[in-house]
Amino acid sequence: MTKTITFERDPDSYRHWRLELNGEVATLYMDVDENGGLFEGYQLKLNSYDLGVDIELADVVQRLRFEHPEVKVVVLRSGKDNVFCAGANIRMLGGAAHAHKVNFCKFTNETRNTYEAAGAESGQYYICAIKGACAGGGYELALACDHLILADDATSNVALPEVPLLAVLPGTGGLTRVTDKRKVRRDLADVFCSIEEGVKGKRAKDWRLVDDVVPNSKFEETVAQRAAEFAAKSSRPSEAQGVRLTPLKRDVGEDGSVTYSTVEVTVDRDGGKAEITIKGPDGDAPADMDAFHAQGAEAWMLRAARELDDAILHLRLNERELGLLVFHTQGDPEAVLAHEALLRDNAGHWLANEVLLYWKRVLKRIDMTSRSLVALVEHGSCYAGVLAEILFAVDRSYMMEDEFEGDNRPLATVTLSEGNFGSWPMANDLTRLETRFLGEPGQVDKLKGSVGEPLEAADAVELGLVTYAFDDIDWEDEVRIFLEERASFSPDALTGMEANLRFAGPETMETRIFGRLTAWQNWIFQRPNAVGAEGALQRYGSGQRGNYNMERV
Amino acid sequence: MTKTITFERDPDSYRHWRLELNGEVATLYMDVDENGGLFEGYQLKLNSYDLGVDIELADVVQRLRFEHPEVKVVVLRSGKDNVFCAGANIRMLGGAAHAHKVNFCKFTNETRNTYEAAGAESGQYYICAIKGACAGGGYELALACDHLILADDATSNVALPEVPLLAVLPGTGGLTRVTDKRKVRRDLADVFCSIEEGVKGKRAKDWRLVDDVVPNSKFEETVAQRAAEFAAKSSRPSEAQGVRLTPLKRDVGEDGSVTYSTVEVTVDRDGGKAEITIKGPDGDAPADMDAFHAQGAEAWMLRAARELDDAILHLRLNERELGLLVFHTQGDPEAVLAHEALLRDNAGHWLANEVLLYWKRVLKRIDMTSRSLVALVEHGSCYAGVLAEILFAVDRSYMMEDEFEGDNRPLATVTLSEGNFGSWPMANDLTRLETRFLGEPGQVDKLKGSVGEPLEAADAVELGLVTYAFDDIDWEDEVRIFLEERASFSPDALTGMEANLRFAGPETMETRIFGRLTAWQNWIFQRPNAVGAEGALQRYGSGQRGNYNMERV
Repeated sequence: MTKTITFERDPDSYRHWRLELNGEVATLYMDVDENGGLFEGYQLKLNSYDLGVDIELADVVQRLRFEHPEVKVVVLRSGKDNVFCAGANIRMLGGAAHAHKVNFCKFTNETRNTYEAAGAESGQYYICAIKGACAGGGYELALACDHLILADDATSNVALPEVPLLAVLPGTGGLTRVTDKRKVRRDLADVFCSIEEGVKGKRAKDWRLVDDVVPNSKFEETVAQRAAEFAAKSSRPSEAQGVRLTPLKRDVGEDGSVTYSTVEVTVDRDGGKAEITIKGPDGDAPADMDAFHAQGAEAWMLRAARELDDAILHLRLNERELGLLVFHTQGDPEAVLAHEALLRDNAGHWLANEVLLYWKRVLKRIDMTSRSLVALVEHGSCYAGVLAEILFAVDRSYMMEDEFEGDNRPLATVTLSEGNFGSWPMANDLTRLETRFLGEPGQVDKLKGSVGEPLEAADAVELGLVTYAFDDIDWEDEVRIFLEERASFSPDALTGMEANLRFAGPETMETRIFGRLTAWQNWIFQRPNAVGAEGALQRYGSGQRGNYNMERV
Repeated sequence: MTKTITFERDPDSYRHWRLELNGEVATLYMDVDENGGLFEGYQLKLNSYDLGVDIELADVVQRLRFEHPEVKVVVLRSGKDNVFCAGANIRMLGGAAHAHKVNFCKFTNETRNTYEAAGAESGQYYICAIKGACAGGGYELALACDHLILADDATSNVALPEVPLLAVLPGTGGLTRVTDKRKVRRDLADVFCSIEEGVKGKRAKDWRLVDDVVPNSKFEETVAQRAAEFAAKSSRPSEAQGVRLTPLKRDVGEDGSVTYSTVEVTVDRDGGKAEITIKGPDGDAPADMDAFHAQGAEAWMLRAARELDDAILHLRLNERELGLLVFHTQGDPEAVLAHEALLRDNAGHWLANEVLLYWKRVLKRIDMTSRSLVALVEHGSCYAGVLAEILFAVDRSYMMEDEFEGDNRPLATVTLSEGNFGSWPMANDLTRLETRFLGEPGQVDKLKGSVGEPLEAADAVELGLVTYAFDDIDWEDEVRIFLEERASFSPDALTGMEANLRFAGPETMETRIFGRLTAWQNWIFQRPNAVGAEGALQRYGSGQRGNYNMERV
């Protein structure tokens, strides 16, 4: 599994999904092409999925937000008879490297979270219409929807059979959503997660596993009715024109570098690191939202978000040995603030809202990236507003202090905007500044007084916005020594440490899925009972159950 | 490491701790006997610890609560020069089986939580007086205290060097307490957890790692002053007489059964299960707290808690292949309620408070036990009040319905007491009933109307208090089939599933330590970078660093 994975898809050539647009209600059919696996060695039978299927889903979900403002309800259903979705493909999981399995689950979780949030954030609700078997990852696809309708017949059911069947956990938030979203009673959840055949009919509703159970004769009518109800409470504009997400411009160099229009990634394999440079806007901000809309995917705020998102995903999946991501920015801080301000000043505009939400997702994607994250605040940089948020997402930051010999770029500064105080909450539902100053909440209020002010190194350190500042004499050595040392540590220990230090404060369903469920799943994904030669994943389909070491840990 | 581990200690023969009593302030010296390791193969140098050291600590902490009501402040310090504590012994960790490491961390975490809660719950505060190096598990011992005083000299520091030095995480809540209790800024926490040599002097206070930094000339004075301040806010009685925790009566059979006075454990190795029967009180409740005090450790409420606690620990550490714990009770429900009521009616009495708190800890110990937990509510059982709590701690429960042929015991009932609505909160700070009915909070209020009423099977099912009820015809088969099936599942998958399903609702520092930090640590404890032949734990002390696979997962 070493081929390079790309994350952009062309809606005209989806292999696994079919989108039917019909005014305010769209229907999204999952209809997986058995022979369309991302890798060799398995067939995607029974609407089972692999990363490739999920990348297409993420693409659909994203385009629905930007290209189809008129869509208020998405009905998710199966394009196949008798099966809704059998979940993640077992043979794929059985053959995949540990790191691929973990990254696969992380990406699918991010996609679930994205459409789960669409209703509350964008007025685009997801209804799941389940006919046929809906098992494992299939039920997890459903659980992330706002409303679940199950056909009441002999073949339709919901199930999380991972534990009894495969000796792993449901890997896409299933356990957490059963207890914390659906609030299923814990002993019933225990029963539900222990039976291969799942639950159907009235019991599925009684146990809170679905919202409606309806006979086939009333199925379509109920789906249409629920869709109309959700559409009625949506604030999404009916008459707006979408923005086409045009293909990304992306050059991949032979040395592994990736160049976009606003983002540049260079790789240093010996040093175990990638450098990511984000370039600020090179023109004025659009005059108003009409002008922004006319620029569409070319508008800096949208373009930079898309390119940065793509770069992070590329590094996660394709460059697993680069344990350090070093962020740089270059450009005019005032210009960043101006481009951002247009959107915040028009936050009631659907498109402004979508672009701000997209930045929220991209920044969360950075938070969740299991690499050591570092930001360098150099002369000529533009850590302002949305880009300053990167300083609070990384594990630590270094800032240039005073003039550097032979460097005539503007002095390094950090500039806060109103956006840093609420536009891009983390998974824990706090802003990054609130998380950062959990021990001194007054500091966040104090920082509001500095909005718009370019803060040089001494002030930024004093205010706690960066970790260290160094002058021309010390900068190069200090940064180099840190990066070399960090790159020498055990990647596993760093992953665990960073996952624990980054999310102080309250927990949410999301932090629990990434912090707790994922950690347990990663552990189980290493255990011989799941992945050993006699483990359940290897033996799946052989007619033999796993041969387990029965010691409890 | 197959010797049987016991959990009771005699204070007259502690090997690693020294308790100096002096009125309301006690001083607890950690003075580990290098040659007193629980197992062969390592020396406990530099006040490093193993499970044996921690079992003694748990014993001291417990006795301080019961035997020394006059102690309002415990000053924790080192009995050695130049070192406070070097943390968990690395050679022990390097040589220990995965399951032992995990159980070791769980037990030490429970001990930390116990003395961390002592201040708020019992008015017994812990002050940590740090001279010398305080590293890793040593600093975690300190972090669980209410107040940390660090000597300001060249050799005294605090450190969490696990990641750079050992390629594992601090395993006893260190990361969580740094971010969520001490609220250290996350980038400073990142720096702190990445430097082997730790932090000392003023910076330790500036970064919120300790509360006081004082020169040696003022060290004793400051310790005494802080002790006096904490003592002044304690509500613990100065004149009360303690209750001696007399040796447990405990018979171990050749077949592995363990018989206490109120608890009986039988083992079924083929079936992979242990049966735990708790016997209700055989006499009337003491008339008042004086009478209870006179009974002391013989009082049923205290005796049953101690015996059940010991039984759970025994099964966890010594019987790792028994994946199922099946709870039974036998006795008079009214008697259980009467014994419990005396304590709740006198909750302001220090001893009543301590016994109720002990049950809270024992029930939490059950919650945290990574075995499948089942309760059988049979005829003649006494699931009332504190014992009914077991029904809400287990993964699922089965209840006998109607009369059984040839069984003339009283019909199975479940009886709630006021205690079920607040006396024994879980780690998530909700009662078990609140956790159970997260989806129907009104149900908890409704249940208050049933307090004191013996509920037979149909009512108990209807009210959601048990999972299933079966009559004479189905009972045996249903229970047998379930137990056999459960015992056939992968223990790892069950551990992960149960850890996720048991703790719905809000998260606390405690659930985060057990749910998140522990899960990451377990994962890392399996990874070659830590435990492989070239991993950091194996190479420790060889002068060679670990040879790491640099792939990030």
